[in-house]
Amino acid sequence: MSTVPHVVVAPDSFKGSLTAVDIAEALAAGVRSAAPDARVTCLPMADGGEGTLDVLAAAWGVTPRELVTVDAVGRPVTARWLVSADGRTGVVELAQASGLVGVADVVRQPLHAHTRGTGEVAAAVLDAGVEEVLVCLGGSASTDGGAGILTGLGVRVLDAAGEQVPDGGEGLARAASLDLSGLHPRARQVRWRVAADVTNPLTGEHGAAAVFGPQKGARPGDVAFLDEALARWAGVLERETGVAVRELPGAGAAGGVPAALVAVLGAVVEPGARMVADAVGLPAAIADADLVLTGEGSFDSQSVRGKVADGIARLAQRSPTRPPVVVVAGQVLLPADQARAAGIRAAFSIAPGPTTMDELVTHTAHRLAEVAASVTALTLGGR
Amino acid sequence: MSTVPHVVVAPDSFKGSLTAVDIAEALAAGVRSAAPDARVTCLPMADGGEGTLDVLAAAWGVTPRELVTVDAVGRPVTARWLVSADGRTGVVELAQASGLVGVADVVRQPLHAHTRGTGEVAAAVLDAGVEEVLVCLGGSASTDGGAGILTGLGVRVLDAAGEQVPDGGEGLARAASLDLSGLHPRARQVRWRVAADVTNPLTGEHGAAAVFGPQKGARPGDVAFLDEALARWAGVLERETGVAVRELPGAGAAGGVPAALVAVLGAVVEPGARMVADAVGLPAAIADADLVLTGEGSFDSQSVRGKVADGIARLAQRSPTRPPVVVVAGQVLLPADQARAAGIRAAFSIAPGPTTMDELVTHTAHRLAEVAASVTALTLGGR
Repeated sequence: MSTVPHVVVAPDSFKGSLTAVDIAEALAAGVRSAAPDARVTCLPMADGGEGTLDVLAAAWGVTPRELVTVDAVGRPVTARWLVSADGRTGVVELAQASGLVGVADVVRQPLHAHTRGTGEVAAAVLDAGVEEVLVCLGGSASTDGGAGILTGLGVRVLDAAGEQVPDGGEGLARAASLDLSGLHPRARQVRWRVAADVTNPLTGEHGAAAVFGPQKGARPGDVAFLDEALARWAGVLERETGVAVRELPGAGAAGGVPAALVAVLGAVVEPGARMVADAVGLPAAIADADLVLTGEGSFDSQSVRGKVADGIARLAQRSPTRPPVVVVAGQVLLPADQARAAGIRAAFSIAPGPTTMDELVTHTAHRLAEVAASVTALTLGGR
Repeated sequence: MSTVPHVVVAPDSFKGSLTAVDIAEALAAGVRSAAPDARVTCLPMADGGEGTLDVLAAAWGVTPRELVTVDAVGRPVTARWLVSADGRTGVVELAQASGLVGVADVVRQPLHAHTRGTGEVAAAVLDAGVEEVLVCLGGSASTDGGAGILTGLGVRVLDAAGEQVPDGGEGLARAASLDLSGLHPRARQVRWRVAADVTNPLTGEHGAAAVFGPQKGARPGDVAFLDEALARWAGVLERETGVAVRELPGAGAAGGVPAALVAVLGAVVEPGARMVADAVGLPAAIADADLVLTGEGSFDSQSVRGKVADGIARLAQRSPTRPPVVVVAGQVLLPADQARAAGIRAAFSIAPGPTTMDELVTHTAHRLAEVAASVTALTLGGR
């Protein structure tokens, strides 16, 4: 350990409680109370889903830009998007324009909801001259296989008669070909990285319609229809681009959005937590860390499968200093041996004893600081 | 750190849940799961109060002996007592013969309850030839200033007319002198060590009657009467022995028992946790420890004032290896900075998140092992 210990604080948000920025501040306060001399690097994290845009804006110190576009059912909506300070990286968060939350005031339309607004945002990002586009999924209202995003970027999805099909999953059932002539000129010149935190394929019993359709309002008949429509869409994409996406892990995220982006734009699908980690500079911070604190609302078996804690554990294992990674969580459900096997040295709940969820939420910041102080004292030694 | 790390596991019991032996086993299982190569020394602890006898019997590998004597209201009762394997140390636990629990089936008798049975047990311990007697207090039914113990050892407490006064606090109001001629011949040849976990004086607003009388059934009038009786008793003791005990810290424990033992027998009053630590060999174990785990039901401001955790912290501070002391508790109420100031490096609750007391009690052993594993992995490093 160097003379001045370096502690990296990189938590996810606690959903329903505090933001990742708040969590990081509370943890850092605890670290400093136990180790006043330590160098503390705060890097609030996100898993690539809803809320990632705000985390990246804070990390980069940039103000989100805005575009008036259409929501998942075609109504005007203002969506935010980002360009990094160096102008090289753009961020599109699907939930901004095409989120389920944005259409919570109307009857759910599982067959008609679409992602065209997100495509228009993506076009604005390309217009800004970026070299790389990060696409954050999560919270989508649609099951349109990403056809809406392509449409927003200038592509025309045509039926057998050469007519453009309507937006939404229903239109995919008639899709026969693509007219790529109007595709945004920069769309194939940039790198597209799509954050997916699930590995579901596009179709079938683990596919976008079967698994995620019901939460978007799809009844059993709708699920069957959408699954067939997505299968047809996969055929169209493969014929037009030569890229097979039906079995691609993660293609079933966000109603099938990755399918279109991978096939047409050459996008790479990756775990969202890793994408965010790269974007905020976490690998460099961990490279000389003596301790890494992360946190999330619930630390469970999902946490070590592509979530923030998992991404951090992998970075720590590659770090020359091999820092211990400690999770501080609202609740700890993963057995300690499974956590260690996944590279998490220890995990502690912020619960001080028997308590209710409401009570715990009220004292989250204080308890985070307390547990962080204990972990820091134990790891860095008494001082 | 030596090549084979040494972990000392020395918890108190979790009152209302598991014994110290059970707690130690659960913690040790967690330590071994995270550090299979570690040497683990299990030394279940006690604070010198009720239950200490069982902990010492287990630590010494001896079977308690028994004596039929009288309980706090004079009924026959079988009391257990100990002699260490080397025959040098005897243990008298006041609650065995004179405990409040033993007379819970009858109306409480705050003026008449006494400790004569404990005195008879002490006589049996002296008959066994020990050189040192450890007296464990806690759970007493009486406020007799220890007069009963003296009586059991052969002393006669006399009134102004030279008649023996009756057992119990009421008799003290008439005490005028002592007849020590019948005192057990070995009583003044051995070392008496009295475990007290309170520092209350014998009399006054913080005294035995005022503070502890009500829980033994004393009404306000009884408290005033007993307080005066104890004051008179202190005067008798001082006249007969030259030892002033009225303001002695701890003299107010167990209805004033230390007053008589200090004045007549030259007993030393000490924190119970330290006495138990010495008796089980904890100082030697901690001298080469790399980590010390302790635990108790509730870790709060009392814990660092003479309780088990406090005793362990003091030993660790004097250990050449300066091992970190970590508390694993049902609930953690003491702020982390106050814990560190008291020599406790870190304290963690076994609560895995929002949970009820019943739920937590059901899973105490499992959760102890989980938290111990996390603490061990964090302290001793990944393996």
